[in-house]
Amino acid sequence: MNQAIGIDIGGTITKIGVISKDGNCLKKTHFRTKEHKSFSSYIAQLNDTLKDLIKKYKNIVGIGIGAPNASKSGTIETPSNLKWDGEINIIEKIKKKNNLPIYLSNDANCAAMGEMMYGNAKNLTDFIVITLGTGLGSGIVCNGEIIEGSDGFAAELGHFSLNNKNRYTGLNIKGGLEAYVSATGIKRTILYMLSKYTNESIFRSISFNNLHGEDITKAAEKGDFIALKAYEYTGKILGESLANFVTFMQPEAIILTGGLVHSGKWILEPTKIAFNNNLLPFYKNKVKILTSGLEDKDSAILGSAALVWKNIL
Amino acid sequence: MNQAIGIDIGGTITKIGVISKDGNCLKKTHFRTKEHKSFSSYIAQLNDTLKDLIKKYKNIVGIGIGAPNASKSGTIETPSNLKWDGEINIIEKIKKKNNLPIYLSNDANCAAMGEMMYGNAKNLTDFIVITLGTGLGSGIVCNGEIIEGSDGFAAELGHFSLNNKNRYTGLNIKGGLEAYVSATGIKRTILYMLSKYTNESIFRSISFNNLHGEDITKAAEKGDFIALKAYEYTGKILGESLANFVTFMQPEAIILTGGLVHSGKWILEPTKIAFNNNLLPFYKNKVKILTSGLEDKDSAILGSAALVWKNIL
Repeated sequence: MNQAIGIDIGGTITKIGVISKDGNCLKKTHFRTKEHKSFSSYIAQLNDTLKDLIKKYKNIVGIGIGAPNASKSGTIETPSNLKWDGEINIIEKIKKKNNLPIYLSNDANCAAMGEMMYGNAKNLTDFIVITLGTGLGSGIVCNGEIIEGSDGFAAELGHFSLNNKNRYTGLNIKGGLEAYVSATGIKRTILYMLSKYTNESIFRSISFNNLHGEDITKAAEKGDFIALKAYEYTGKILGESLANFVTFMQPEAIILTGGLVHSGKWILEPTKIAFNNNLLPFYKNKVKILTSGLEDKDSAILGSAALVWKNIL
Repeated sequence: MNQAIGIDIGGTITKIGVISKDGNCLKKTHFRTKEHKSFSSYIAQLNDTLKDLIKKYKNIVGIGIGAPNASKSGTIETPSNLKWDGEINIIEKIKKKNNLPIYLSNDANCAAMGEMMYGNAKNLTDFIVITLGTGLGSGIVCNGEIIEGSDGFAAELGHFSLNNKNRYTGLNIKGGLEAYVSATGIKRTILYMLSKYTNESIFRSISFNNLHGEDITKAAEKGDFIALKAYEYTGKILGESLANFVTFMQPEAIILTGGLVHSGKWILEPTKIAFNNNLLPFYKNKVKILTSGLEDKDSAILGSAALVWKNIL
């Protein structure tokens, strides 16, 4: 059976998988994006990994790449969560080392494609996928098609502006949603809550750089006041924003995925409460909040591989 | 040549036109929506008007209707700018009186269709039309198709929530965009500015019910402080919101139409300034703000008629 390589370039980790047409992940590997200070060092490791996989798996027909700020022309522009400068022509750099067809799209568009081919959006024509990783990404499907906008920068909801909020994003823009709602956003909210309240908390002895998402979940389970406040605050902003997105396109469902969602009910319950409290009367009970149907499978690399099937078939 | 009847049901006025396939308006008439306290009285006048037109014009092949909150199933649900109660089955009521095919869509979707067939969106595949009448309506086209959502209530941007704003909409919802940005919204802002400042103004001697949009334009032209403040405030909210909509779908253009736009530079200049100040760096100079290409022609009835051509051809 034919195989495709799916690559998910995240701000922290780059994941690479060999995926069969029916959605089985035959091989999965990863390395740290963040460790590479320059794009040339990063692309060298990526090309080495691809070379090994292409040698071992004989039926690979193409490579699909999901990356932040991917443009329609095959480049990555001003990525806010990657530290490399300028415009990055990733397709060209990979093409130099092998002659498989290569397709590039926004990482969150790939996640949406993965949900549509293999996950919780199989029968849906109108939905939003929100990826809550280092940043907040989004992929939007209307009338059964990914919306890309005039040159590929539709669905940049991480930069959706909250006009009463002043936290800066990686692009140095005030009030962007991802500054609050993302794995990084909730860590920032932990600091904010520590600054606002005087309550004791495990987080008073952990630095920002040593703080991980799972620590916040563990603390919430133990009743840590600061952790509980942080989830409540984050969920409220997310739920209000999702209700606002519904006025745009009335999706059948909004699918949440990514690291922050691993905290389960701690993030989902306040999100759903705020969503329902802010939803317009004529949308009530018509829009589902779901989590990914590809939980352990990794929707992003499946979705990147789906780019190949979509373009080749 | 075949003809279609286009009907635009606005909160204040119902406009009816006989439109040829190539977009010529052969006959235009209207009556006041607001004068009818009940739906049965309204539908009687509408059916009388249709009867006369169908008798006079021999080649009418269908009727297209644009109405607020039109659903996919042919009804109008909880319309915030019409005073009639409950769910209104308008197609059924017209069908009783004639046997032409009848098509119904959201009034702003019709405006978008009109711009796409005959106006300033002729070559565009991704754009938004914002209608600034009694309320604020919107029609959104992505990948060349109107987005309707799961049952026809996509593009309800009049209810897009401004989370630092507290003015109520007709649905008794706080902070909706149309409470600020619409022909009614700017009248409310005149009152707000009169309450905030002590400056003399022509509006100190005009009641809310006697205040009309053109009075505000005339006052601005004479340098009336309250009128100038009202345009500045309205344009700022509109421009900020439009910049936020861009993060959703990266349109090629946003087309403004309706009564409020007749004030020209007074509303357009502060809108464009706020739009550009709030647009993300990677969208700069890529999204045009336009006015309707059907100015005197009435985009809404042309668009309602376009519903007929789209469905029949």
